[in-house]
Amino acid sequence: MDSMLAFLVAARRCEIHDLEQLARSCELVHAVSELVHRLQAERGASNLHLASGGASFGAERAARVEASAAAEAAVRAWLAQPEVCQAEPAQAMPGGARLFTRVAFALHALDGLTGTRAAVDALRCTAGEATQHFSRVIAALLALVFEAADVAAEPAVSRLLVALFNLMQGKELAGQERASGAAAFAAGGAASAGARGDQALLHLIEAQEACFERFEAFCPPAVRSSWEQARARMPMAELERLRRKLIAAGQGAALEPALAEPWFACCSQRLEIMRETEVALADGLRAACAQRIAALRADPDDPQSLLRALAGLPAAPAALGALVGPSAGEAGAGVPNRPAGDEPAGGEPIGPRLTRSIVDVLQAQSLRLQAMSDELAAVRATLDERKLVERAKGVLMRHQGLAEDEAYRLLRQTAMNQGRRLVDVAQAVLAMAELLPRRG
Amino acid sequence: MDSMLAFLVAARRCEIHDLEQLARSCELVHAVSELVHRLQAERGASNLHLASGGASFGAERAARVEASAAAEAAVRAWLAQPEVCQAEPAQAMPGGARLFTRVAFALHALDGLTGTRAAVDALRCTAGEATQHFSRVIAALLALVFEAADVAAEPAVSRLLVALFNLMQGKELAGQERASGAAAFAAGGAASAGARGDQALLHLIEAQEACFERFEAFCPPAVRSSWEQARARMPMAELERLRRKLIAAGQGAALEPALAEPWFACCSQRLEIMRETEVALADGLRAACAQRIAALRADPDDPQSLLRALAGLPAAPAALGALVGPSAGEAGAGVPNRPAGDEPAGGEPIGPRLTRSIVDVLQAQSLRLQAMSDELAAVRATLDERKLVERAKGVLMRHQGLAEDEAYRLLRQTAMNQGRRLVDVAQAVLAMAELLPRRG
Repeated sequence: MDSMLAFLVAARRCEIHDLEQLARSCELVHAVSELVHRLQAERGASNLHLASGGASFGAERAARVEASAAAEAAVRAWLAQPEVCQAEPAQAMPGGARLFTRVAFALHALDGLTGTRAAVDALRCTAGEATQHFSRVIAALLALVFEAADVAAEPAVSRLLVALFNLMQGKELAGQERASGAAAFAAGGAASAGARGDQALLHLIEAQEACFERFEAFCPPAVRSSWEQARARMPMAELERLRRKLIAAGQGAALEPALAEPWFACCSQRLEIMRETEVALADGLRAACAQRIAALRADPDDPQSLLRALAGLPAAPAALGALVGPSAGEAGAGVPNRPAGDEPAGGEPIGPRLTRSIVDVLQAQSLRLQAMSDELAAVRATLDERKLVERAKGVLMRHQGLAEDEAYRLLRQTAMNQGRRLVDVAQAVLAMAELLPRRG
Repeated sequence: MDSMLAFLVAARRCEIHDLEQLARSCELVHAVSELVHRLQAERGASNLHLASGGASFGAERAARVEASAAAEAAVRAWLAQPEVCQAEPAQAMPGGARLFTRVAFALHALDGLTGTRAAVDALRCTAGEATQHFSRVIAALLALVFEAADVAAEPAVSRLLVALFNLMQGKELAGQERASGAAAFAAGGAASAGARGDQALLHLIEAQEACFERFEAFCPPAVRSSWEQARARMPMAELERLRRKLIAAGQGAALEPALAEPWFACCSQRLEIMRETEVALADGLRAACAQRIAALRADPDDPQSLLRALAGLPAAPAALGALVGPSAGEAGAGVPNRPAGDEPAGGEPIGPRLTRSIVDVLQAQSLRLQAMSDELAAVRATLDERKLVERAKGVLMRHQGLAEDEAYRLLRQTAMNQGRRLVDVAQAVLAMAELLPRRG
């Protein structure tokens, strides 16, 4: 077989294989998004249960624990498939080492849930502590989705993963808003939320909106329009009214504990509506992988079809060298003069027309891969920005002893004051990290 | 077995597997660098043979043809290994689809050599045409090395590949300078080189220097110092004297055809000295891969050693949940409370100390992968710049009907006039490509 064609076929097979592996990461992301949703609901019910001193929400919490345990079991069962965790490295999901490290982190965080649940059962922890534990587990699961988006090598799927990650992240911030607001209402005001409770709330609201903007930027049009409709159904008037009370409490106003339940219900309704779009996106992931694989297989330029065409070719023994001399070279790559003895295994030499067509396929494939790589770079750029901002936040938290939202506010305020982009300020912080004084 | 540990082990295995695959691309690059060197020598001898009207350099050319055919056979034999071209996609070299497409292009270009050689044998083409054909084949081989650098996922190896690519590219421009200068001397002056022969020469000299600067930036210190010594041995005084004559010829001065041979000899000596560093770098590639693999295997934090340690653990039946409660969580990931029934296969639960140590390994691995990914991004940024400049050149060549060196000069001049970086001008050209008038 012509060796050039062999590599063209090999390239196409690699592409399909990579998509199949990507489809598997997408299955994992699908299961993880379900688990995150369940854990958010369990976190909420656990908070209400703890806030009531164990008096109420016991049955509701038990149901939520059961649902999230089932979702966790589904993720663990998926991961325990021999073709996943015992796969030869070559068969691993894309970005193997990085994705698997995130999986290990997520499993490690999930292992801690048993202890958290026992503590809630025994009323041994506060609502704030329980929130913190659940949020940590959810953060580890979100990091897994982020990594899957970062290692995906197909732009259409990568865009969907970026959209899904940002929706999930925004929804998680909305979940944290629900938890901290519920705690503040239950405690009757600023006493529990602390002096900076209103600042933390403002941060959660603003960060949510930033996530939803990025989600919308990467979201396919169909999901986008169902998202618009979903947003219209969210109880925003009620939510904004209650948010206003929480912010006023930050300035010293008292809160009515009776509003804890309407607040929780209103936030929960919003989260459930978000979940509809999340499911649509997660389902779309599988469809997108399947569609890309089918498109590659149906491609009339598929080198495999060329191979099949070759098998049925009539003999064409004319010397190719005579037909396409070196001076006929064009398109930057020249035209092949196949050396003698390099005929296809079937003994039929490749006719000049087909040779030309193989060259066309080669050019088309090369352009397509280049375009994909460019598009992918553009999608990943937004992920790189997030990585920089997250790491700069980490530096400020470690070196300056700031809380996460304070670190974010400092970055954002510096960017506004200096008229620079957030990501540039983050980069400057990282570059200066060595020089920053370390606290305690 | 603890599932977190299983994924930590899987991540490490993926990392080693990726390095082993990278070692194979490096073998290919090694063979390709040899072939490029041989083709450059054959191009030179073919030019002298054609310039003499077939009267001389016949034997020398025959020897060079033989040497490059042997190097080509070595590359083809390497590619024909069943584990390369018939490998399952999962076993393919890193960046499978992209690298294989480049391999197909390179094989296609190599297929054209038979015709080129026949044309030289029959004196059916000019030295300029022969140069063009050889240069096209070499460009396809360099593109393969570029792609291997772009898809490499280990920063140390990626740096070496970037250094090697730039050295090879600079050496190729030096080879083109040799060819065009030899043709100009042989023709006795500007008549053959054309009115812009001196401009083309200046471009080749400047572009070489830019390549060598990038090579030096990415070159390991040991190779760097042997390169400094090699440079000192290059016949630069003689080369600069002859360059000066060629540039004067661009302004109308006559050239002595007798200088064609000293020019060729002097350029060839320089290329051979460059080749020494090229060989050192190419050899260094294998060593770097082997060293990285050995380092990962010898890592005391290797999760496999943890597994072995687990196998020899004494029974430690105390409930972990009691030892490390959820409130002991730290470092952002919490401490695991392993659920009951999740014991290692050997029946021995993992002791708290070892659990802690697994978490340390997980943190270390995660930080290491993140640092690698950052370093890789920095290395690839230089490749991305080159891609943009190449594509902007292509746009100017297509739309404005410019030659390659003219397109490059236009970009560079615009950058200087506007005080912008070359890469920013290239980006602007690409953004405006749709608006540029296309020449008939």
